[in-house]
Amino acid sequence: MSKSDRIEPRRLKGFRDYPPDLMAARLAFMDVIRAEARLAGFQVIGTPALEYAETLLGQGGEETDKQVYRFKDNGDRDVALRFDLTVPFARFIAENQGTLAFPFKKLQMGDVWRGENTQKGRYREFCQCDIDVIGTDSAAADIEVLAVLQKMLSKINFGPFTVAVGNRVLLSALIRKFLGDIDSTVETSALIVIDKLAKIGRDKVAVMLQDLPGAAAGGAAKLLDVILKKDAAGDTDVATFRSAIEQDETASRELLRLTDVIAAVRQSALGDHGKVVLDLSIARGLGYYTGIVFETTIDALPGFGSVSSGGRYNDLASRFTTRELPGVGGSIGLDRLLAALEELKRLPTTKGGMIFVAIATPDALLYGYDIATRIRALGIPADVGMTAKLQAQFKHADRLGCPYVLTVGGSERESQTFALKSMADGKEEKGVPLAALTATVSKLGLATY
Amino acid sequence: MSKSDRIEPRRLKGFRDYPPDLMAARLAFMDVIRAEARLAGFQVIGTPALEYAETLLGQGGEETDKQVYRFKDNGDRDVALRFDLTVPFARFIAENQGTLAFPFKKLQMGDVWRGENTQKGRYREFCQCDIDVIGTDSAAADIEVLAVLQKMLSKINFGPFTVAVGNRVLLSALIRKFLGDIDSTVETSALIVIDKLAKIGRDKVAVMLQDLPGAAAGGAAKLLDVILKKDAAGDTDVATFRSAIEQDETASRELLRLTDVIAAVRQSALGDHGKVVLDLSIARGLGYYTGIVFETTIDALPGFGSVSSGGRYNDLASRFTTRELPGVGGSIGLDRLLAALEELKRLPTTKGGMIFVAIATPDALLYGYDIATRIRALGIPADVGMTAKLQAQFKHADRLGCPYVLTVGGSERESQTFALKSMADGKEEKGVPLAALTATVSKLGLATY
Repeated sequence: MSKSDRIEPRRLKGFRDYPPDLMAARLAFMDVIRAEARLAGFQVIGTPALEYAETLLGQGGEETDKQVYRFKDNGDRDVALRFDLTVPFARFIAENQGTLAFPFKKLQMGDVWRGENTQKGRYREFCQCDIDVIGTDSAAADIEVLAVLQKMLSKINFGPFTVAVGNRVLLSALIRKFLGDIDSTVETSALIVIDKLAKIGRDKVAVMLQDLPGAAAGGAAKLLDVILKKDAAGDTDVATFRSAIEQDETASRELLRLTDVIAAVRQSALGDHGKVVLDLSIARGLGYYTGIVFETTIDALPGFGSVSSGGRYNDLASRFTTRELPGVGGSIGLDRLLAALEELKRLPTTKGGMIFVAIATPDALLYGYDIATRIRALGIPADVGMTAKLQAQFKHADRLGCPYVLTVGGSERESQTFALKSMADGKEEKGVPLAALTATVSKLGLATY
Repeated sequence: MSKSDRIEPRRLKGFRDYPPDLMAARLAFMDVIRAEARLAGFQVIGTPALEYAETLLGQGGEETDKQVYRFKDNGDRDVALRFDLTVPFARFIAENQGTLAFPFKKLQMGDVWRGENTQKGRYREFCQCDIDVIGTDSAAADIEVLAVLQKMLSKINFGPFTVAVGNRVLLSALIRKFLGDIDSTVETSALIVIDKLAKIGRDKVAVMLQDLPGAAAGGAAKLLDVILKKDAAGDTDVATFRSAIEQDETASRELLRLTDVIAAVRQSALGDHGKVVLDLSIARGLGYYTGIVFETTIDALPGFGSVSSGGRYNDLASRFTTRELPGVGGSIGLDRLLAALEELKRLPTTKGGMIFVAIATPDALLYGYDIATRIRALGIPADVGMTAKLQAQFKHADRLGCPYVLTVGGSERESQTFALKSMADGKEEKGVPLAALTATVSKLGLATY
């Protein structure tokens, strides 16, 4: 190729490659998520990356709409890349409701795209892993989603984490009690302001709440007093909260349910790394939540933000169907987690465990390849030398982290033997008969797959 | 939501959802592919779905360029969705060559997008699984790619299949011998014409070949005689072929290498479902192949086309780097295979193996959830009832294919017992003590994960 045809290899800003180590970690996490989902009876589904723009837009808020990759396809259709898995899931549910058994428990794992400003640990293409239980308002579904997400995060093993659980109904009841008879858009604004507590602190939130149209004098301070008061265990103080909402029957019932759910999740997650706290200041930004809401932070990375969040919704698919489908769901931001693990230097490694079959002379290639095939049949990974010089093959084996190199040349082929060298201590056994291959290799203690 | 805001749930033409059964099969196949790749020392990598258009375009031929989803992003960059994994891999290799150990063996699995005309079993979004050994021209790499792909396809278990293996060098040598001193673009045209043999038959191909500019009189018929002559085993007749190219040293060497490679693949794949045939009429459409080429068909679906193909290339990343990187690769069209399996009605099922914990009275929810958690801890999938009526829970359990339903109510909670019913014969054991849960459940013979 002439020099003028050559172009710079470059990626788009905010997009990343996954070299082997990073990809292995990503896949290992996805395996954990799938295994836990399977144990809990969640079924995996998939939807396309591209949808009609009208399906996706207007669902994630104005900010999200601006970030969507939207374009005209070759057939002049107005299409867009999905920015989350929830909206396509709603479309999926409406389209497939006739063949699904409700309550339907699903896992969905896939990339989503948002043209947002890039920053450390945030990409324009990232993988979400969502579980949902849809078609029920049972508290069992709330427990299930919270407990299963916690199991998944525990197994991914990034150290202690905290799941803060709140409730939209309770927060709204308190907002109405203390800010007074405000209209529903102001109530939504109040939720969005309260969602900023962790970011901007109590004082600024107090001012913003008090400034909302129609807010009763002194209401913001009283509201914040109640939601931020903690008991000795670090939970929102339930006694204080209960007395604040005791006139509100719906809210009182919801509080009882919430404490039950939290008790059940704590019980089911004994021995896991997660800690569940009741935090009634949790609001979540998204509009469709109508009950329990939660978010998860890594204890060792307090400034990193949430790596898993979710909540209950009344009616996910109402844009597509008249059928009412309440449910509860939660999402693990896989690539956010991966970025966190990179920061914590806790990425697992892919190296090791493989036997390298070195080819000393070209006439031994088929013999060596046959030996590699036999090793693989035992469930043990095996690679075969592909460079002419034996020394280069040993160097390559070392770079791949192979603990053993098995060498064959023309004379080994003739005598149906092989040599086996341990890379750790450099000891080599020569003239091992081919008939002893299985016994010899099985003794090495390598993991099988 | 008001009726006027409601929209029809619809997918884009050529895009499909993956409901649980289909997705489970897709994931099972990907697991097989990953497991076999791991055993053979291939490492998994990933690249973005979106790339600069200049990276992708002009690489897959004019027809492919027309099918690419290309657009301006919000930053006015000229971008495109990848239409295969090979071109992004070339970009990846050029960008990451400093940190990779060559020969580099990789597996890449991901969706690609082509706005082609939709037809049965062909979609505009589909998953490719590519393995490549790059940075070597060793015959060991040819063997490796062919043998590992064959192992993968055997494990996916769709019945007997045939891998037809040819070679571009040999075919070109024969074209030059019989069509005479034609220029290189005509030679490429000849390859493209020969690639149509399976589709349009010998007679039409003969006419098209003979009509090529500069083709020697009678050459087409002689050429086709040689490449279509089979021996008793169904392979291209090597003796005839060898005598046709005996003056050409390069081709003769290549033929020796090819028969060696095929012998090794046959040896390593003993007992598998695949049959390897030497078929020197195989040309493959893509321009970058420079050695061995192959394609795979399912014996039970002769008209379905290739489900896996590939070949050797001299210099994959030459557009991005001066470093010469020869290699060999092959691709499994996962969604093509899935469509084939649907047609053969051989999709595996996701049902079964799960214990359903039914909640007879609401006060037993936490008790029941605790039992489900203990069952899951044994590695056995368990679901929990989420509808009020017990009868509906049993119906749901039946629909999910659960072989056993474990029931708890307030009285079981009090006495710390449970009831266990076999859905197959309807027999129910009541009053089983909670302490006997592990022993009771382990005896059922359900698969653990």
